[in-house]
Order: sequence, then C-alpha cells, then structure tokens
Amino acid sequence: MTKSKRKDSGLAILAFGGNAIIRKGQSGEIHTQFANTRRVLQGVVSLVQNGSGLIIVHGNGPQVGNELFRSQLAASEVPELPLGVLVADTEGGMGYMIQQCLQNVLWKNKLKKPVVTILTQVVCDKNDPHLYEPTKPIGRFFSEADAKRLMNDKGWVMKEDAGRGWRLVVPSPRPVRIIEDDTISMLVEAGIIVIAGGGGGIPIVVEPNGDFEGQDVVVDKDFTASLIGHHVGADTLIIATDIQQVALNFNTPQQVNLSRMTVSEAQRYLNEGHFLEGSMGPKIEASIRFIESGGDRVIIAAPDRIAAAIRGEAGTTITSD
Amino acid sequence: MTKSKRKDSGLAILAFGGNAIIRKGQSGEIHTQFANTRRVLQGVVSLVQNGSGLIIVHGNGPQVGNELFRSQLAASEVPELPLGVLVADTEGGMGYMIQQCLQNVLWKNKLKKPVVTILTQVVCDKNDPHLYEPTKPIGRFFSEADAKRLMNDKGWVMKEDAGRGWRLVVPSPRPVRIIEDDTISMLVEAGIIVIAGGGGGIPIVVEPNGDFEGQDVVVDKDFTASLIGHHVGADTLIIATDIQQVALNFNTPQQVNLSRMTVSEAQRYLNEGHFLEGSMGPKIEASIRFIESGGDRVIIAAPDRIAAAIRGEAGTTITSD
Repeated sequence: MTKSKRKDSGLAILAFGGNAIIRKGQSGEIHTQFANTRRVLQGVVSLVQNGSGLIIVHGNGPQVGNELFRSQLAASEVPELPLGVLVADTEGGMGYMIQQCLQNVLWKNKLKKPVVTILTQVVCDKNDPHLYEPTKPIGRFFSEADAKRLMNDKGWVMKEDAGRGWRLVVPSPRPVRIIEDDTISMLVEAGIIVIAGGGGGIPIVVEPNGDFEGQDVVVDKDFTASLIGHHVGADTLIIATDIQQVALNFNTPQQVNLSRMTVSEAQRYLNEGHFLEGSMGPKIEASIRFIESGGDRVIIAAPDRIAAAIRGEAGTTITSD
Repeated sequence: MTKSKRKDSGLAILAFGGNAIIRKGQSGEIHTQFANTRRVLQGVVSLVQNGSGLIIVHGNGPQVGNELFRSQLAASEVPELPLGVLVADTEGGMGYMIQQCLQNVLWKNKLKKPVVTILTQVVCDKNDPHLYEPTKPIGRFFSEADAKRLMNDKGWVMKEDAGRGWRLVVPSPRPVRIIEDDTISMLVEAGIIVIAGGGGGIPIVVEPNGDFEGQDVVVDKDFTASLIGHHVGADTLIIATDIQQVALNFNTPQQVNLSRMTVSEAQRYLNEGHFLEGSMGPKIEASIRFIESGGDRVIIAAPDRIAAAIRGEAGTTITSD
C-alpha cells in the first residue's frame, strides 16, 4: 500500500474507548453497554452515507477489567484465565455487540453494507521496554490491604491510583505489526465494514523459532488504529473520546481549545507536556504517527459530534504541515 | 453456490466439540486447553499438506459453562453477562487459541496458509419450537437445594442429569442462516483457513423490523458446520469426536462398529433409535443434511485419527447412496 494511495482513499478508521461503552460511574450492565454502543455509532451513519469505507477499532479497559475481576472472584471454583485470553474474549463479546448495533442502525437507514469482526493479533517487539514495565492501570480498585495480599499471592504489580484506591498495573507495549492486516485490507476493499484490533488487539510476540506467543499485557487501541489505518491506506483517523476539543493548558485558567493543528504543532505541544501521559498523550502520539506514515487527517471529537467534526464544525482536526 | 461445484471442491469443514479442549474430568486450566487444542489440530496438518481448503467450527460446551459460572459467582460485584454474549466471548477466546495453535503448527510444517477467525452470528427461526424448549444441559452441576434456589431466584430451568447433579438446561434451536456466510466464502476462496461458527455461532433472530436480536440459547456446532459447509461448497465434513467409530446398539453386547454407511442407512439407523439424542443423534442428523444438500462425504472420527480416517483406515465414512 503506497502513501500516494492514501490521500482521498475514502477510507476512514474510527477508534473509541471501552469507556465510551461503560461510562464513568457505570458498572457494565449489558443493556446499558448496548445503549451506549448505539449512541457512539449514531455518528458513523453519516460517514457510511457519504460513501466512506470504514474500519472500527475499540478499546476494552472497563470490560477487560470486569472479565479479570470475574475470573479472580471465581478462581476457587473455575480456573482463572490469563489477561491475553481475556482480551480475546472481549474481542468476541464487544465485537459482537458493536457489529450487531451497527448492522441494525445501518439497516434502519437503508444502508446495506456488511459488517464483519476479525479477531486480531498484534505483534509487540521483545526489545520494547514498554513490554516489561507495568504502567497501565486496569480493572477495579482494591483497598491497600487487599492490594498487598494480591501483590504477595499473585506477584501482581499494583499502584495507588490518584487517591481512589489500588489497581493492577500492566505493561502496555507499542504494536509493531498486525497479523491479520492483509485480510482486513481484502475485506475493506470488498466494501465490508470491518471491526478489528478490538481492545488494542491480542498482544503476542514472535519467538525466534517462529511461534506466536500470547502476552499478558494490553496494547493502546489508538496506536493499533493508527497502524491498521496505515496498512489499509485510510486517509482519515477518527478518535472518539469524551472531550469537546483537544486543549492546551488543560484544566487550568489558561486552557485554550484547539479546532485545528498541524502535525508539527502537535509534536511541539506534546514535547511541551500539554497532553497527559495515560490520556491525551498517546492519542496525539498515535495521530502524529498516522499522518507521518501517509494519512491525510486525524479528527479527535466526542462520539456524538463525529459527523459535525468531519464537517469541521466540532472537535479538533490535525493535518500535515 | 451450486451443488455441482461441491464434488471434489477440495474444501473440507472440520467440527470438534469444546469437550475436545476441556476433556472429561478437566477443569479448564488454560495451559491444558492449549495443549489439547494442539493435539486436536495435529490431524489437520495432513489435510492442509494435501492442498485442501479448510474451515474449522468448534463447540464451546465446557467453556461457555465456565464463563457462565464466573459471571454468576461474581454477580454481586460485576454485572452478569447473558448467555448470548458469553457465546460471543468464547468465539473470541477459543478462536484466538485455536487460530494461534494452528498458525504455529502450520509454520513448523512450513505451510504458509493464513488463518483468520470470523465472529459468526447464526439466525434461528422464531417459529422453531427448539428455540423455546430447554433441552441442552450446560455448565456445572449443582446440588438439588442450590438448583431449586436458582430456579426460584433466576427463573432458570434446571434438570437432574443422569444422577450426577442438577444443571441449567437451555434451548438449542436449529440454525437456518449464517449472517457472515459470504465473507467466509470470500476468505476461503482467497486460500485462507477460516475459523467460524464457534460455539455453534452467536444465536440471533431477525425481528419483523429487520433488527438482529441476540438469543440466550446455544446452537449445536454440528448443524452450524453442516450449514456453513453447504454455503461455501465444502465436499467433506469431518466431525471429530471422542469415539473410534459410529456404532449400532452402542454400549450393548450387540454393539457393531461401522466403517462406512450410506445416507439412507444413516437415516434408517437414526429412525431406529441407534443414536443418542444429545450425543450421536445430532451428529448423524447434521451429516445427513450435509450430504443431502450436496456434500460428498462425512467423516466421523477421533481427533487423533483424522488423517487415517481420511484415508479410509479409521472412523466412519458416510456417503450418498
């Protein structure tokens, strides 16, 4: 896939977090998850109506946290599942939910595009220090006493999270290759909407003998979306997240919201520390990678403002210089 | 896909149960599941070496039972997931495990065929009485007292299972259509090995307004395999199960093992009650459907005898009259 093919390819890749589906303060009751999914997907209809090809990448933070918790609570009766397999479980359950909600809303709008979910393995680099350094908090909060017991019993790394309690922290390596990338391309070229890279993808490494080996880590879905988008030749990356616009001096009296920025400006603001490490930082970094590898533009917007953001009336648009 | 295309299409569909992966007496420890998966897939290598296209359909009985149990045990802390979504979870987790094990064994044998897992929804008929009648036991065994409490609290239907305890029983409708069938065909025609219809597929009905609506039931994987095999034009259906051969008067002094039978003989033996309702019965019924809809042959054999069975040296082969 050459870079020249990517301008105006009419192909968009949409990434949204698991926390758009289990929202702050919600526990993950399934009907609420389906309702939130339908809400997120409303903005997608106009994209498809405009004839854009589409790939959807979703996160799974709260969902894989719930799966991990179920697995732990039942451990005395049913064998625990490792994190890598639980990520695969969420690619199944969440992929199904998103696929079915999208099929239903497309059908209501008389858009007869097939939607397919592809299990996706992402290769991580064994030399990536992020593969070994636990930085990403996942799942529920524990008391200090419970956390210390879990660290002792299970060898977990746990950290106190902003005064709210202790959480498991796991490594979050950068994805370097998507095993199913050619299949995703083939399906998209056939006019199929593809859900791929769910939960950031199932993390694996490739052993010297060629074996794929699962890793109990989580990959950031924005990096995975950027990588898939590059491979399939998407011109637009849409990152749906619960903010109106990207901001400088976020949450200070000097906050400035941005409607547009170039990739150089984005890099400068990132270097200046405007974007939080575990939050806007990786989204901006993934956006820069997407444009530098040949993408046309990145749109960062709230899920229900996607259609307006595409018209340039909401959110933040990042373009090349 | 016409019937004439199916003879010698060089395309096989393999179905095996979730109980080939969590075997009798095993609890589902993940390393054991991976080891069992590798064992089941050994027989597949010779198929691929002989140039056959391949689709794999797997069951999920013990696995979805474990998921259901985790969900129940954690219910006071994490919202429960309904059975339909848990089936989708197992399409993710088990699909990943089977895909990765197959990729590794193919690589070791220098067979560079891609393997992809497709989430699969199967449509059930709202007028099918099997959709409403709980017949299929799933998950763990409960004491009579616990079972009565669950029936009262959750409205579950539970039945005493062969003196071993009480189990949840759920409906098991016949699949009538595969939503992703054209995608599966496209991938197979491109030379990709496809894992589809996991757990028998995620059961849905199509509402009068066109909406897909998930159902908390389980679909028999052999029927789903037969249906997918028909659509993609497979000439051979292989049902891997833990018996050496199909038998008449099974488990009696008059037991007769069968190396071959025609579809008419199979139908007659089925009518005569030779095959157990929840066990060999549906396998034979699915086999008959496969051949009557244009398939060439069905092979029923133990997982580690697949290669020998294809050569006609093991298992039971069913052909048209």
